[in-house]
Amino acid sequence: MRKIHVIGIGAGDPDQLTLQAVRALRGTDVFFVLDKGEVKSDLTRLRHDMLDTHLPDGAYRVVEARDPERDRGAGGAAYSPAVGDWRSARAEIYERLITEELGEEQSGAFLVWGDPALYDSTLAILQEVLARGAVTFEYDVVPGISSVSALVARHRTGLNRVARPVQITTGRRLAEGFPEGVDDVVVMLDAHQAFRQYAEEDVDIYWGAYIGTPDEILVSGPIAEAGPRIERLRAEARERKGWIMDTYLLRRNPGRE
Amino acid sequence: MRKIHVIGIGAGDPDQLTLQAVRALRGTDVFFVLDKGEVKSDLTRLRHDMLDTHLPDGAYRVVEARDPERDRGAGGAAYSPAVGDWRSARAEIYERLITEELGEEQSGAFLVWGDPALYDSTLAILQEVLARGAVTFEYDVVPGISSVSALVARHRTGLNRVARPVQITTGRRLAEGFPEGVDDVVVMLDAHQAFRQYAEEDVDIYWGAYIGTPDEILVSGPIAEAGPRIERLRAEARERKGWIMDTYLLRRNPGRE
Ligand SMILES: C[S@@+](CC[C@H](N)C(=O)[O-])C[C@H]1O[C@@H](n2cnc3c(N)ncnc32)[C@H](O)[C@@H]1O
Ligand SMILES: C[S@@+](CC[C@H](N)C(=O)[O-])C[C@H]1O[C@@H](n2cnc3c(N)ncnc32)[C@H](O)[C@@H]1O
Repeated sequence: MRKIHVIGIGAGDPDQLTLQAVRALRGTDVFFVLDKGEVKSDLTRLRHDMLDTHLPDGAYRVVEARDPERDRGAGGAAYSPAVGDWRSARAEIYERLITEELGEEQSGAFLVWGDPALYDSTLAILQEVLARGAVTFEYDVVPGISSVSALVARHRTGLNRVARPVQITTGRRLAEGFPEGVDDVVVMLDAHQAFRQYAEEDVDIYWGAYIGTPDEILVSGPIAEAGPRIERLRAEARERKGWIMDTYLLRRNPGRE
Repeated sequence: MRKIHVIGIGAGDPDQLTLQAVRALRGTDVFFVLDKGEVKSDLTRLRHDMLDTHLPDGAYRVVEARDPERDRGAGGAAYSPAVGDWRSARAEIYERLITEELGEEQSGAFLVWGDPALYDSTLAILQEVLARGAVTFEYDVVPGISSVSALVARHRTGLNRVARPVQITTGRRLAEGFPEGVDDVVVMLDAHQAFRQYAEEDVDIYWGAYIGTPDEILVSGPIAEAGPRIERLRAEARERKGWIMDTYLLRRNPGRE
């Protein structure tokens, strides 16, 4: 029976691999790397460096494939269906990769950025591949340190306050309003700095870009003060590197004295 | 200058330590272990086993201290103040530990269960110790795999659905109602199985106890079906071991076909 490991590799710092992940890497014959286009080639390189570090004898194979283009033109309501089509397109690719590149008794791995549980489609796609019924395999999931954990560790703060909840959401959602019933909100996938609309309120921001990498930038403080600085640093970094990944925690009524 | 590492050690599986955590363990002179009473002695043992595995030459010192009793009799509204007092009591203990047990040029570590960012008071206490001004030190945080990440990895599912938020909350909060604006909710610190009140609704539960340990138990399904099974298994396990740690994800309108 074919085996697949879905391995969370952390969000940028190669030392944030777990021992379990290293073990899974060492037990893998074929690595599938889905390339998202040249702007993210730093990230593909980081994956290769990890393999070289932990599999120094080179006894593994990497199969690269091109990720189908996502319909990025789609607006709010169209987001989910566009993702749906894109998932099916990816399911076809994954099915072909598994069928054609993995021997019956071999094990393959998908290396997932951060934690496979957060805003990642690998698990859903594998479930779709199985549902199609053309190929069977076993699979397991190795949790990883998410960019969320890495962010707050670098800021040396917690996600939640005592006995209170925390929500993890997207920039798009935050743009629709501060979530109900929570004062601590982590925002991912925000291309438009939705935090700006809370600059007048008593909200602290803990922001990080390229967390865990040599390019890491961290800024924190009340949004009114930290916000403009984040906007400037973010624009500069994005210009310089050609891409950016950033995440932040918003903390309402931080209880300053 | 004294140095303190706050190290997330994962939520039960010793292989879920990160390479960064192992490195931090190896760079530590004195480990502070705060004992929460005999029922959790399994957990204290797990910490010692980790040290033996990663520091085989035994060139380290462990200092054990007794955690002050928390006022467990306190009801809903009293929760926060009770925690406040308890925190000050702990701050005093931490201050003494750091001042008396750690040399000026040494580094100490607190080994934190799961991820220090989730429902853990170590960071707040260290900040309080610094604010008291009697001792100075540098500190950093090593993120860990939380029980939340471990839970969903074992169930091979994600925390959020496409482009949607997830909330992490407590059993006490869930008992007050299903959180607003989210359909995916992770519940920790639930002594009363608050999920039962949603048995009539279209909600799936992904439950796990002692995740990552040899005692691990996993159950999933619609609450109406899985709930009674969880209640039985939970009661049996708690009886057998004398303590239980469990966490679950609730997924509303799971979209069954
Ligand atoms: C498609 S999601 C994947 C998240 C990933 N599974 C995780 O656990 O971090 C991509 C988003 O994660 C965040 N992100 C990932 N890596 C990051 C990093 N190194 N620094 C800052 N943000 C990061 C950003 O918000 C980005 O938009
Ligand atoms: C005080 S909180 C600490 C959480 C920890 N910092 C983390 O990241 O998992 C304790 C709660 O975490 C959850 N928990 C911790 N370890 C667990 C495990 N191995 N299995 C199931 N739940 C666990 C339970 O909900 C428990 O009530």
